[in-house]
Amino acid sequence: MDARTDVKALMLGIGGRARDAALVLAEAETEAKDAALLAMAGAVEAAGPTILDANARDMAAGRDKGLSAAMLDRLLLTEDRIRGMADGVRSVAAQPDPVGAVIADWDRPTGLRIRRVRTPIGVVGVIYESRPNVTADAGALCLKSGNAVILRGGSESFESARAIHSAMLDGLRSAGLTEDAIQMVPTTDRAAVGEMLGMSSLIDVIVPRGGKGLVGRVQDEARVPVFAHLEGIVHVYVDKAADIEKARRVILNSKTRRTGICGAAECLLIDRALLRDHAPEIISDLVSAGVEVRGDADLAGLPGVVPASDADWGTEYLDSIVAASVVDGVDGAVEHIRRYGSKHTDCILTEDDAAAERFFRRLDSAILMRNTSTQFADGGEFGMGAEIGIATGKLHARGPVGAEQLTSFKYLVEGDGTLRA
Amino acid sequence: MDARTDVKALMLGIGGRARDAALVLAEAETEAKDAALLAMAGAVEAAGPTILDANARDMAAGRDKGLSAAMLDRLLLTEDRIRGMADGVRSVAAQPDPVGAVIADWDRPTGLRIRRVRTPIGVVGVIYESRPNVTADAGALCLKSGNAVILRGGSESFESARAIHSAMLDGLRSAGLTEDAIQMVPTTDRAAVGEMLGMSSLIDVIVPRGGKGLVGRVQDEARVPVFAHLEGIVHVYVDKAADIEKARRVILNSKTRRTGICGAAECLLIDRALLRDHAPEIISDLVSAGVEVRGDADLAGLPGVVPASDADWGTEYLDSIVAASVVDGVDGAVEHIRRYGSKHTDCILTEDDAAAERFFRRLDSAILMRNTSTQFADGGEFGMGAEIGIATGKLHARGPVGAEQLTSFKYLVEGDGTLRA
Repeated sequence: MDARTDVKALMLGIGGRARDAALVLAEAETEAKDAALLAMAGAVEAAGPTILDANARDMAAGRDKGLSAAMLDRLLLTEDRIRGMADGVRSVAAQPDPVGAVIADWDRPTGLRIRRVRTPIGVVGVIYESRPNVTADAGALCLKSGNAVILRGGSESFESARAIHSAMLDGLRSAGLTEDAIQMVPTTDRAAVGEMLGMSSLIDVIVPRGGKGLVGRVQDEARVPVFAHLEGIVHVYVDKAADIEKARRVILNSKTRRTGICGAAECLLIDRALLRDHAPEIISDLVSAGVEVRGDADLAGLPGVVPASDADWGTEYLDSIVAASVVDGVDGAVEHIRRYGSKHTDCILTEDDAAAERFFRRLDSAILMRNTSTQFADGGEFGMGAEIGIATGKLHARGPVGAEQLTSFKYLVEGDGTLRA
Repeated sequence: MDARTDVKALMLGIGGRARDAALVLAEAETEAKDAALLAMAGAVEAAGPTILDANARDMAAGRDKGLSAAMLDRLLLTEDRIRGMADGVRSVAAQPDPVGAVIADWDRPTGLRIRRVRTPIGVVGVIYESRPNVTADAGALCLKSGNAVILRGGSESFESARAIHSAMLDGLRSAGLTEDAIQMVPTTDRAAVGEMLGMSSLIDVIVPRGGKGLVGRVQDEARVPVFAHLEGIVHVYVDKAADIEKARRVILNSKTRRTGICGAAECLLIDRALLRDHAPEIISDLVSAGVEVRGDADLAGLPGVVPASDADWGTEYLDSIVAASVVDGVDGAVEHIRRYGSKHTDCILTEDDAAAERFFRRLDSAILMRNTSTQFADGGEFGMGAEIGIATGKLHARGPVGAEQLTSFKYLVEGDGTLRA
């Protein structure tokens, strides 16, 4: 047996146990799942020191490997972040159980009563990179929705994720639920990812959480359905009918509150009607806040603006950089976003209802916003408790993926000896 | 340029026009779509003689090729069936427009108002075989849901499908909608199917309608997401608490009303508690109706029963044949169905609520039924107007796929200069 065969056997074993666990979880009582979630939250907090030790080892290795400051920040755990993770698990516990919920219920003239009820999907595979907190978020959301999950963390966060996972298993055990509900792949061998992507009879859907490279590989190679999570090339368009003071605050918040999250603004579109009177102050806000503004020809003359190159349109910087372009009204903004956007989150700033309505109707991003910071593109801020990611595909899940979107449904049809004519 | 290159260029052209049409359709008014549907229905009826001529050519070619009686029946059009097709299109017109419907609407403590609204998916590819009516059903449902559709009919029904398609284009034209909304691949070259399965940037989802061979090929090769439509290995389980007279009628209707549809019963499971007193009359009903009953060892001694082989479990006959097995109560039935079923439609006959509840909870078929003929597994009978098929997968669409399930959604988020803290 070579290493390749070992990984295959390992993954088939994990997949088989997940499939069995899914049958058990589909019938698990709400109370048992919620008790396990609360126990998991407590266990994660109790394991704080162990998790911080493991994280320190990951951080040291990351520094040795020369990871960027942004990646190290995503990797870093603190007491606060561990508490945040545990609170996230608790808020998932507090959500209503989606499984068994009746989505629709109607009668037919034939006498049939039809109900459409939520069911778990089955087995979810989550492939992630440097954020160790995905271990807790994904584990909690999958358990809540009655799915078994196979977690495959990246090598950078391996020790941290393993420590978090171990605490989650304590929680499962204490609630009497099978540990196979939340399995973690115990190797960083990349062949394990390849196996997961091909296990279409054992895994029902794969959620990739990470950079372009990972997501691209998953979408190219997967034989299992994927909830696409493309990058967030988030546009903010300031319309001529914007309230400029409001707009300036929203733009700054959208770009600078946290630059490394997928809801951070990456491209500013300014209505040509605002070019002379208001573009200077909007741009100057950003420059003063330390943001590098890469502007098109119309904006190039403003103080602090560096000229944009073609590569700047459609780029996700996740950094203190913003592309900026002048466009001709709502339709110009729509055209630009259709061409360069990633259908994640796009925003219009306007007091004109018709302009907002046109922006909302003509664009097809997972999240369209008006007069609000794009940094609200987040499952927690949407009221979902937590999220497993923000899906940019159009099938099944879209936008923030919480427990409800990790479910499917079935029809229950009842008659009384009803025959079809 | 060889033939292969020609097909590739042809399909890329069709895909590009569909993508453009999808943008137009996404903004089309309900009235325009419904007017086109009504015009299409009228045009299909008006083209009746032309469609029947084309169908006669397909039927003659089918007989020459030695198609089975069941396939010829699926291929055959009559005046009645043409009227049925037109009525189907009219009933789709009469349904509410799913696009733009607000699925959910809530406020957040931050002051944000969030709406979740339905949108079209984009471009749908439908690959089908011998049923020419799919041309009208799929075209109508995709138009209603604001999607562009690429229809790829099989060679057996090619002339009939082309005649129907031509009538549908008349309807689109008269309503002023783009003809690219409903395109039909103008060749029976199988390479066209291969191209469709790989066009992931131009087609958003593929719906295969046909036999095991077609569906298997699509699932194996597709780089585009697929709404799986597996065969209907439909089980009917008679529980010890069944009302036997009711059960006998339901079993007969489930098996014999039409044997060639996917909701037809293929396997009868009898509770062991009924073996001595009631199995003989249940089996005798079927034998008397001309059904070949292939029974397990427990049933083999009954008059007219032929012994089942292993291959009979999990077989979709689509014919006047039924497999029959004795099982140990609800759990025995669940075990059998989990092993051999296709998650399409399965039914329990019982007056015991607890038994029905257990059957409903433990099984995960798209449609679970109680005390009703499985022949009701149909979008029309569910009240959806028509269906593009019955999906057996768990992602996005499941069960009868009508216009609503051909939609996605997006979030519209509104604030008033709202900033994230």
